[in-house]
Amino acid sequence: VLPVAVDAMGGDDAPGVVLEGVRRAVAAGIGIVLVGLPDVVARVTDLGPGGEAIAASEVIGMSDDPAAGVRRKKDSSLVRAAEAVRDGRACAMVSAGNTGAAMAASLLRMGRIRGVNRPAIATAIPRPDSLAFTTLLDCGANAEVQPEWLVQFAQMGTVFARRRLGVAEPTVGLMSIGEESSKGSGLVKETHDLLSVAPAVRFVGNVEGRDVLKATADVIVTDGFTGNVILKTLEGGVRIAVDAVLDAAGLSRATAADSLGALLHRIEPSTHGGSMLLGVDGVSIISHGSSDATAIESAIRIAVEMVDAEIVAELRAAITTE
Amino acid sequence: VLPVAVDAMGGDDAPGVVLEGVRRAVAAGIGIVLVGLPDVVARVTDLGPGGEAIAASEVIGMSDDPAAGVRRKKDSSLVRAAEAVRDGRACAMVSAGNTGAAMAASLLRMGRIRGVNRPAIATAIPRPDSLAFTTLLDCGANAEVQPEWLVQFAQMGTVFARRRLGVAEPTVGLMSIGEESSKGSGLVKETHDLLSVAPAVRFVGNVEGRDVLKATADVIVTDGFTGNVILKTLEGGVRIAVDAVLDAAGLSRATAADSLGALLHRIEPSTHGGSMLLGVDGVSIISHGSSDATAIESAIRIAVEMVDAEIVAELRAAITTE
Repeated sequence: VLPVAVDAMGGDDAPGVVLEGVRRAVAAGIGIVLVGLPDVVARVTDLGPGGEAIAASEVIGMSDDPAAGVRRKKDSSLVRAAEAVRDGRACAMVSAGNTGAAMAASLLRMGRIRGVNRPAIATAIPRPDSLAFTTLLDCGANAEVQPEWLVQFAQMGTVFARRRLGVAEPTVGLMSIGEESSKGSGLVKETHDLLSVAPAVRFVGNVEGRDVLKATADVIVTDGFTGNVILKTLEGGVRIAVDAVLDAAGLSRATAADSLGALLHRIEPSTHGGSMLLGVDGVSIISHGSSDATAIESAIRIAVEMVDAEIVAELRAAITTE
Repeated sequence: VLPVAVDAMGGDDAPGVVLEGVRRAVAAGIGIVLVGLPDVVARVTDLGPGGEAIAASEVIGMSDDPAAGVRRKKDSSLVRAAEAVRDGRACAMVSAGNTGAAMAASLLRMGRIRGVNRPAIATAIPRPDSLAFTTLLDCGANAEVQPEWLVQFAQMGTVFARRRLGVAEPTVGLMSIGEESSKGSGLVKETHDLLSVAPAVRFVGNVEGRDVLKATADVIVTDGFTGNVILKTLEGGVRIAVDAVLDAAGLSRATAADSLGALLHRIEPSTHGGSMLLGVDGVSIISHGSSDATAIESAIRIAVEMVDAEIVAELRAAITTE
């Protein structure tokens, strides 16, 4: 089993929380290829089975232009991490850094799965009233899309929901502004027709914003602009509303009861493992910028699980082309 | 002062809650033109100063196609309510019915303000951690838009925030998937450039989904597809998350403390007056389908306020054309 490549430099609280997450993963028996500035990677001495440190001289920052950053900073931690996967030194990569750059580095260094028009970012969103998740994609890889791409997102999202979340036969909904197939943009109407006859997709029709946290569909597909807006609207909105309710009820996050604390932890995006870039020829986990050590450790575990589940081979098999 | 036209047939709980809302408005001294099926409008005997009942023989249902419904059902309550405004029998209209049909009826019967490319639906979204609101538009009138339309939405939203919400100098943000002007769709990039030089708009740049419930911008403009998805995502997400938190904390909505109850009421969309269709030549309030009697009464009051504030004249003055 190959180790997991981890970008030590990515994230709002990097490298501190990343190194702590790595230490925990190593303690759990996972090997790590730790990529980052020399003095940073030197701070973790035990990198587990097959683990190694790779020194990189550059860092792509959160505000760097993704494409330009990857093109210019060839010795950056993100690019070197993606190369470790390409070169067979690691089985997967994890980064909490610049999302666009993590995507570009994965795409340019690992390449696309044959037949995939565009990779998409899939995010498992926790439903507050159950232990289930809704898979939303694309969460930001492609601001503009074509109907055929959305069909592939549906096929890839189905594989993700099955392998990552254990949903046996995932249903797929198409984000729109009304349940009727006659509503929505031209893109939605065309996509609706294609999804209705798409192979390997259990399409349940159009869904609306209020369905994201419900069990209406296991997978919801949309363009990367809408998906990213949904994700950030929920992150911000749920947090602000929950804080206001706790405040008005005289409760605090810190002193919350066990059951409440578990819920608050569950619906907090920074504690999750992160999103997965589907469609590239390798496992690439894109963690939330505000990830804590738990989230990093979780992302590393998920990367291993996805490799074990042979998700890339499953994705390859699920993709249909025109 | 002219009475307000109210569609007695519109809404999930119509006509019951609508008639109750009308009774309360009349008790507060507001005249009502009540439009609906004959046996329904006959159920309210006192319609206040200048009030009258208008019998309509048809109803446009929630699932009717908006344009076709307005075209075919010329004697529907929605169409007759819009005509009451056009004909000078009412100063404004209120409906909690089919949003698309309310929009189409308003547009076709009242006409557009000269120079307005497309009307837009503006919604005042309560921020849970303050008593302020964020104005979001377009919330669903136009699934697809052009950059010039979004500039007009910014100008109209500014007037709405000033007149409806009392914000002296409203700031305007453009919904995108990153704060940098280089991010987002082609539409967003073009619109960003136009807004940067638009007259009568205090543009603060791009905003993200997480900013909707924050004080980042008083007005947020976006296309009607994204706006509708945001609104419904928040409605559904906040409710589900808040319910889960209350449940985990052993609290119920019914027995919540005063401060908590006030907050829950404040952030509940069905208790609000509703959205306003900006850009038509008259005041048209589109209430939430799940409105209760309080929301209907509130919508009627807001309609009167908007007429008193001469918002249509203000909108006319604010619109610039190419």
